[in-house]
Amino acid sequence: MIGLKEKYLAMVQEDLDGIEQELESNLNPYLDLVRETASHLLFSGGKRFRPLLMVLCARLCGYQGNRDWLFSTAFEYIHAATLLHDDLVDGADLRRGKPVAHSIFGAPTTVLVGDFLLARALSIGAKTGRMQVIEALSEVTEQMSQGEILQLLRKGRLEMTEEEYLDVILRKTAVLIQAACRVGAIIADGKAAEESALSSYGLNIGFAFQMADDLLDYTSDTQILGKGIGADLKEGKLTLPLIHALKMADGKDRRDMKRIVQNRNFSEAEFRKLVELMNRYGGLAYTREKAASHIETAKNALDRFAPSDAKDILRFVADYAMARKM
Amino acid sequence: MIGLKEKYLAMVQEDLDGIEQELESNLNPYLDLVRETASHLLFSGGKRFRPLLMVLCARLCGYQGNRDWLFSTAFEYIHAATLLHDDLVDGADLRRGKPVAHSIFGAPTTVLVGDFLLARALSIGAKTGRMQVIEALSEVTEQMSQGEILQLLRKGRLEMTEEEYLDVILRKTAVLIQAACRVGAIIADGKAAEESALSSYGLNIGFAFQMADDLLDYTSDTQILGKGIGADLKEGKLTLPLIHALKMADGKDRRDMKRIVQNRNFSEAEFRKLVELMNRYGGLAYTREKAASHIETAKNALDRFAPSDAKDILRFVADYAMARKM
Repeated sequence: MIGLKEKYLAMVQEDLDGIEQELESNLNPYLDLVRETASHLLFSGGKRFRPLLMVLCARLCGYQGNRDWLFSTAFEYIHAATLLHDDLVDGADLRRGKPVAHSIFGAPTTVLVGDFLLARALSIGAKTGRMQVIEALSEVTEQMSQGEILQLLRKGRLEMTEEEYLDVILRKTAVLIQAACRVGAIIADGKAAEESALSSYGLNIGFAFQMADDLLDYTSDTQILGKGIGADLKEGKLTLPLIHALKMADGKDRRDMKRIVQNRNFSEAEFRKLVELMNRYGGLAYTREKAASHIETAKNALDRFAPSDAKDILRFVADYAMARKM
Repeated sequence: MIGLKEKYLAMVQEDLDGIEQELESNLNPYLDLVRETASHLLFSGGKRFRPLLMVLCARLCGYQGNRDWLFSTAFEYIHAATLLHDDLVDGADLRRGKPVAHSIFGAPTTVLVGDFLLARALSIGAKTGRMQVIEALSEVTEQMSQGEILQLLRKGRLEMTEEEYLDVILRKTAVLIQAACRVGAIIADGKAAEESALSSYGLNIGFAFQMADDLLDYTSDTQILGKGIGADLKEGKLTLPLIHALKMADGKDRRDMKRIVQNRNFSEAEFRKLVELMNRYGGLAYTREKAASHIETAKNALDRFAPSDAKDILRFVADYAMARKM
C-alpha cells in the first residue's frame, strides 16, 4: 500500500500544490487576526481531501478551465469552518496534534472566524457562476450544522441505534464529500448521469471515511490520531463499532461495556477491556465490513467513466479511505 | 410623529404580514430544536426592518414578481444569525427584553443554529437566480464577522477614534442594510444608477440607525431598550457619543469620564455623571448631527425616483431611523 500511496501522491502533487496556493491567496481577510486564526487550522496538515476530490471529479468529467483549484477551496473553507465550530461545541482539546483554535484565540474569535470562512466559501462558490454550486454549498452547511446538533443531542445516550448513527454521519461528513464530487461534475458541465454517479461516489466515500475514522478511535494511538485515544468516547460520542457491539452483547459483558462507557474517566485498562469486548462482539469487524461495502459502491459508481488517471486516482482514494491509518 | 408612524405602518402592514409568513415557512429545519432556538430570536418582536427595506426598494425599482417577501427573509435570517453569535461573543444577557438564546439553549446549540441561519439565508438568496445577490450576501457576512472581531479587539480601549468607530459600524450594521436595499434593486432589474442610489440610501440609513442605537444606550431606559441601560459601556464598547466627548474634554472632566468608563461596575450615580459630562462636551449632540447628516444623504439618494408610496415610506423610514426611540 505504501508504494501505491507514493505513486498516487506523486500523481496529485501538482493539484495539491495548486490547491494549497489558492487556499493561501483566497483567504482574503481584512484583519490579521482572522488570517492567523483561520491559518492555525487551515495550514496544520490537512490533507485537502475534499478539494482534491472536487478537482479529480471535474477532470473525470472533462473540465477544461483553469479555475478548478480556486473553486475547490470552497470545500476546504467550509470544512475548516465546521471544524472550528465543532471543536468549540465539543470542548475538544487537540486537532491534528495541535491545541484547538479556541484554546489559543478564544471562543469569540473562533466563532466569528468560522462565520468568516463559511461566507468565504460561498463567495468562492459564486465565482463558479453556477447557482447549483451555491445551492449545494448552502444546503450542505444547513445539514452539517444540524448534524452536529443531532450529535450533541445524542451524546452519552447508550441507546443510540445504527440508523441514528448513520443519520449523524450522513450530515456531519458524507454530504460535504458528496457535494465536492458533485460540484466537480457541475463545473465541468458533466452529464446528469455523471453528476449522479459522482454524487453516489462521494456519498459512499464519505460514509466509509467516517466509519474508518470512528474505528481509529479504538484501534489507533494518539500519535497517529492527533488527538487522545478514546477521545470520541470521552466526549460521549457513540459510534458504530460500539453501537453494534452493545447491540450484540448481553448479560455481564453488556453491563461491563455500559459501565465503562458511562464513566467518562475510564482508565486505560478499562478502555482496553472495552476494546476487547467490542472485538468479541464483532463491533470493529462489522464497522469494517460496512465501510468496505460503501467503498465497493463508490468504486462501482466510477464504472461508467472511461479509463483515465483521474479515475485510477479516485479508485485508489476509495481504497485508501479505508486503509489510510489502519 | 406618532400619527405619521401609524399612517406608514398601515401602508406596510401587508408587507410585514407577508414577510412574517415567509419567515415562518422558510425556516425549514430538520430538527425541532433548531426551529425552537431560531424562533426564540426570530419571533421576539424584531421589526423586519431589513426585509422591509428590500421589499420597498424592489417596488421602487418596479419589481413585478411575487417572491419579494420570500427573498427578503435572507436579510432577516442573516441578521438573526449574527445576533445569535454576537450576543454569545459579547456575553450579553438580554435581547429585546428577553434572555438571550445562549442562556436558554446553551452556547453550542446557539453557535450551530447561527450557522444554520446563515446557510438558510444563502439558500434563499440562491432562489433569486442572481449571482449578484449571493455575492452581496456572502460579502456582507464576511464583513459582519470581521466587524464584530474588530469591535472585540477594541473593547475597553479608551483611545478609540471616530474613524475606528465608523469602520466598526460600517461592517457591523451598515453593510447589511445597504445590501438589503441594493438587492431590492437587483431583483427588480433596476438600472445601475438606481442600484447605486439605493445602495447609498441603505448605507447612510445603516450609519444613522447605528448611531441612533448608540445614543439610546445613554438616553433611554431599560424598558424601551430591551436591555440594561449603559449595557454597551458595561461590555466595554465605546461608541461615538463617548468617543467625541472624550476627545473634546480635558483636565479633571476627562479624567472623571475615563475613570467611570474604566470601572465596568459603575454605579447609577456615576453613569448619570458620565452622561452629564458627555452632554457638556457635546458627545450626544455631535452624534445626533452626524446621524441627521446621514439621513439627509439617504433621503437625497431617493431624489432620482418618481413619486410613489414606496418612496414616501422610504423617506419616512429615514426620518424614523433617527426618531424611533427618542
